[in-house]
Amino acid sequence: MNQAPETIEGWYALHDIRQVDWAAWEALSPQQRDAAVEEAVRHLEWALNLQDGPEGSSALYSLLGHKGDLMLLHLRPTLKELNRLELELDRTRLAQVSRRTYSFVSVIELSTYGAGGQKVEGDPLDNPYLKKRLHLQIPGTSHVCFYPMNKRRGERENWYLLPPEERAALMRDHGEIGRRYGDRVTQMITGAVGLDDWEWGVTLFGNDPLAFKKLVYEMRFDEASARYAEFGSFFVGVRLEPRELPGYLSL
Amino acid sequence: MNQAPETIEGWYALHDIRQVDWAAWEALSPQQRDAAVEEAVRHLEWALNLQDGPEGSSALYSLLGHKGDLMLLHLRPTLKELNRLELELDRTRLAQVSRRTYSFVSVIELSTYGAGGQKVEGDPLDNPYLKKRLHLQIPGTSHVCFYPMNKRRGERENWYLLPPEERAALMRDHGEIGRRYGDRVTQMITGAVGLDDWEWGVTLFGNDPLAFKKLVYEMRFDEASARYAEFGSFFVGVRLEPRELPGYLSL
Amino acid sequence: MNQAPETIEGWYALHDIRQVDWAAWEALSPQQRDAAVEEAVRHLEWALNLQDGPEGSSALYSLLGHKGDLMLLHLRPTLKELNRLELELDRTRLAQVSRRTYSFVSVIELSTYGAGGQKVEGDPLDNPYLKKRLHLQIPGTSHVCFYPMNKRRGERENWYLLPPEERAALMRDHGEIGRRYGDRVTQMITGAVGLDDWEWGVTLFGNDPLAFKKLVYEMRFDEASARYAEFGSFFVGVRLEPRELPGYLSL
Amino acid sequence: MNQAPETIEGWYALHDIRQVDWAAWEALSPQQRDAAVEEAVRHLEWALNLQDGPEGSSALYSLLGHKGDLMLLHLRPTLKELNRLELELDRTRLAQVSRRTYSFVSVIELSTYGAGGQKVEGDPLDNPYLKKRLHLQIPGTSHVCFYPMNKRRGERENWYLLPPEERAALMRDHGEIGRRYGDRVTQMITGAVGLDDWEWGVTLFGNDPLAFKKLVYEMRFDEASARYAEFGSFFVGVRLEPRELPGYLSL
Amino acid sequence: MNQAPETIEGWYALHDIRQVDWAAWEALSPQQRDAAVEEAVRHLEWALNLQDGPEGSSALYSLLGHKGDLMLLHLRPTLKELNRLELELDRTRLAQVSRRTYSFVSVIELSTYGAGGQKVEGDPLDNPYLKKRLHLQIPGTSHVCFYPMNKRRGERENWYLLPPEERAALMRDHGEIGRRYGDRVTQMITGAVGLDDWEWGVTLFGNDPLAFKKLVYEMRFDEASARYAEFGSFFVGVRLEPRELPGYLSL
Repeated sequence: MNQAPETIEGWYALHDIRQVDWAAWEALSPQQRDAAVEEAVRHLEWALNLQDGPEGSSALYSLLGHKGDLMLLHLRPTLKELNRLELELDRTRLAQVSRRTYSFVSVIELSTYGAGGQKVEGDPLDNPYLKKRLHLQIPGTSHVCFYPMNKRRGERENWYLLPPEERAALMRDHGEIGRRYGDRVTQMITGAVGLDDWEWGVTLFGNDPLAFKKLVYEMRFDEASARYAEFGSFFVGVRLEPRELPGYLSL
Repeated sequence: MNQAPETIEGWYALHDIRQVDWAAWEALSPQQRDAAVEEAVRHLEWALNLQDGPEGSSALYSLLGHKGDLMLLHLRPTLKELNRLELELDRTRLAQVSRRTYSFVSVIELSTYGAGGQKVEGDPLDNPYLKKRLHLQIPGTSHVCFYPMNKRRGERENWYLLPPEERAALMRDHGEIGRRYGDRVTQMITGAVGLDDWEWGVTLFGNDPLAFKKLVYEMRFDEASARYAEFGSFFVGVRLEPRELPGYLSL
Repeated sequence: MNQAPETIEGWYALHDIRQVDWAAWEALSPQQRDAAVEEAVRHLEWALNLQDGPEGSSALYSLLGHKGDLMLLHLRPTLKELNRLELELDRTRLAQVSRRTYSFVSVIELSTYGAGGQKVEGDPLDNPYLKKRLHLQIPGTSHVCFYPMNKRRGERENWYLLPPEERAALMRDHGEIGRRYGDRVTQMITGAVGLDDWEWGVTLFGNDPLAFKKLVYEMRFDEASARYAEFGSFFVGVRLEPRELPGYLSL
Repeated sequence: MNQAPETIEGWYALHDIRQVDWAAWEALSPQQRDAAVEEAVRHLEWALNLQDGPEGSSALYSLLGHKGDLMLLHLRPTLKELNRLELELDRTRLAQVSRRTYSFVSVIELSTYGAGGQKVEGDPLDNPYLKKRLHLQIPGTSHVCFYPMNKRRGERENWYLLPPEERAALMRDHGEIGRRYGDRVTQMITGAVGLDDWEWGVTLFGNDPLAFKKLVYEMRFDEASARYAEFGSFFVGVRLEPRELPGYLSL
Repeated sequence: MNQAPETIEGWYALHDIRQVDWAAWEALSPQQRDAAVEEAVRHLEWALNLQDGPEGSSALYSLLGHKGDLMLLHLRPTLKELNRLELELDRTRLAQVSRRTYSFVSVIELSTYGAGGQKVEGDPLDNPYLKKRLHLQIPGTSHVCFYPMNKRRGERENWYLLPPEERAALMRDHGEIGRRYGDRVTQMITGAVGLDDWEWGVTLFGNDPLAFKKLVYEMRFDEASARYAEFGSFFVGVRLEPRELPGYLSL
């Protein structure tokens, strides 16, 4: 029997994507819109300032294109906290003039491939480098890129039937590309097996979206991706601070 | 001609998933919302307390993400009882401000693979171990994970063309992983061939959702899954008691 | 050039599946609902009692799950009659608070595979056994199961490139399973090539839905299905008499 | 480098498919419905009588099933004329209580495969036989069948990598089946590469829809289809004259 | 490890596709419609005349078929500018009676395959030929064709596993077809890896839409496309000037 690689998990992640119904928004009275903006800013500051719990990290983005207008990214210790954040948003007036078009439920995952296959001894949170990644503080960069992915289980090319050493070698090569972009792009890998429809989520943070394109394009030619990766939709966005929301929503 | 494995069936299962239209909910008057909450709690207690029939089991969950807000899980002796539960829910005010986004119709299934390929003699319900699984009382755990799946009928890898002994050996290995998680995760396997679009449903019950991820990830590398499994959507939720519904729905 | 098997066609079939918008239904006044129920019962009795034409057969079912609430099954001599039945339904108030979520347009088909490859001489309707199948009177059983299917035209496994004798042998084995269930399940095979997106429809009638599961599961292992079948959605329902409609729709 | 076969193009074609929202239709006042019917009949007669331009051909059909209620088929010399026809329809009240669920943009195409691979010399419109097909007058038959299709570009079976002679031979065999049905079914082949999502559209006109089934089924076994064809949805309908529209729409 | 080809990027591109809800449009009062047309013309002229920033290019098209009514094409130096254009449109009344049905986020890309594999030295914008393509002024042609595409990563045919020389040779042959149509069709290739769901966008500009069909059909037989291309939807449209919008929208 083949062996699953060991993984270390950190905070849970919720990518929460909404599309605004601008006609419904416009149908509100100016007073209702003012109140809705105020309520939304209050909700977002509450969530982004972690007033819902002891630890975590959150950010808001304005997405490009038809797949969604706003993306909220939440990192929290438990699924229950993410469920509550989702529900609190649903109860705002802004949520009532928008709808959730996509979401992704996952958990920050460090694979031991990255550590050269060496087992991590003791509590990973005692290791400051690992802790920084397992309990990621979302970087303040201006752009984000998110996409879910699978490893292929094809009839000829099947990641899950490869010997562990081959998988480890492929992931090391793959990781090297990411590291070369390390000064321009922060990567967050989240595992979603058993939690969402895709197996992993990749979230990239950076100030130059061209670096997302260059990085993902370069990776497409490394064998781990070329032969074994399957990709879902790509969501690209621009950071939005709660205090910018009134401008975003003003007609 | 190849032979289908013998299966033993228990109660029928309905996974009933709904998405709340929060704008429609908010458009109700406070009096209407109070009445709707009261009616929904009454309906849920009626269903969860089995006031609709002599036996079965039911539970309610708050789901994460855009695929649904609430999941009702019903186990009953007949399809007619499940059909009635569905219709009774449709007639509540809460159902009228929400819509069914997914459902799964199936029947609890024990495959004789699990029993080492040995035929079960006599009425399986006379065997207390089998009865407990065929007439499952839904565990009171805090989290649930549900996903439908198929066995692949690919052009090269085709489960249905394997010799029975090979299928049995693969399922035994597969089952061992589940058993290793037995203290943390209760599995319910339901068969849906001829009843729904996917062939099986897997419902996992546990208090730690990380165990769902670890279990499903580990299984992905065993040959029965790696080579032959196809997966539908994954639905993950948090247990919700009817008495918690007013809080869930309060604006 | 390969040869298409000869087929004999009987009545045309329409599977007409609708989802009720319970909020729209509830928004009607009690008087409007009473009138709508009365009109719907009248329409259904008109259709089920064949008041629209000289011959055929019709039935109504309450479906389980999110794919639809009601399924009307009509068998008639011509497509025009089916088109009229559809339009007459569209004009009822009940149709206006529901929508057609799926349909299947096909024609009862007897393949000469079933007759051992022997050509039927003369008018098949002169043969009482064939006539009974070509002009099927829908059985009064309590449950129905409907699914569309294709024969695979894969790059390696391609039904349409098999020699006729091999296809005939596979279909004979396949047919034997159905015959073994003959006392519990009546099968209606309808051909839809050139009429609908899938190539065939299978409609099963029986009093015990577990027999649907057992039959379809057993067939999945016979080579004709294991190697060559592709399946669409499965719709399972409970027979509903027009006179039961008021109860079905009552809030 | 492989060579594309030469093609000769005639009129552009628009298959414009709409689904009526019967509830919205019913919500109009009787006066509004009368005016809407009158306007729709006027629009259709304007289009069908070619009052929008010097030449072309148009027809209206009532479709079966959930994929659409009405199909307008327009043949015109330019895309701009088709765009205008579409927009003029959008502006009618009938369009406002219905929505476009599918469409197909293509151009009548004669492949030189059909002419035995011989090049057509001079202007094809000088040839009366070619002109009749390039500038097709839609036959007045009672039934229509439309479906889009591709030639497969699979990893093993790839039409576009076949030698031209093999493609020509396959298309000749394929064409022979069509010719055998020539007295019962008129075929219109339209090319959509670069214009729509599928590569070709096939529109069949005839008085007996069973001939559509027999023709398409027989073709499914010829090698050009069995090995290389991919099919989209099938739309089947009954001819509707503008003067029949009031009856069609009357409640 | 295989090597990604070097690419040079120019302006970002947004293809923004909307479908008008003609019933919602008609439900406005004549005064509201007049104001909405005026506002839309003002917005479009603002965007098309580059009043939102120092450089770029924009155009408007009326699309054929059900996939969308209007397509706005914007080229700008940054994603933020495209995001703002999108949001400014969302805030118009016209946007409120329509919805974004598709979009494509990408960046103009020149592959060094086209330059015979030679590396471009220095700033590509210093080269007038490259600058003209990287900062494309949208041609004033009457027709447009847009489609997204991928290079196949199949289990047997995998573009990303080919040696760089083979990819370069295939792209040179592919490019020759485009050059032969250069007098009739202007091509804009945009890269979307890491930005959108498909890897590239192809936008064709020309006065005769038949040239789109001929070009794309001919390319389908060259090996780069025949073996390795996967295509998304095709959108075909007719140029619309802002001043023509009142006519387009008038009922």
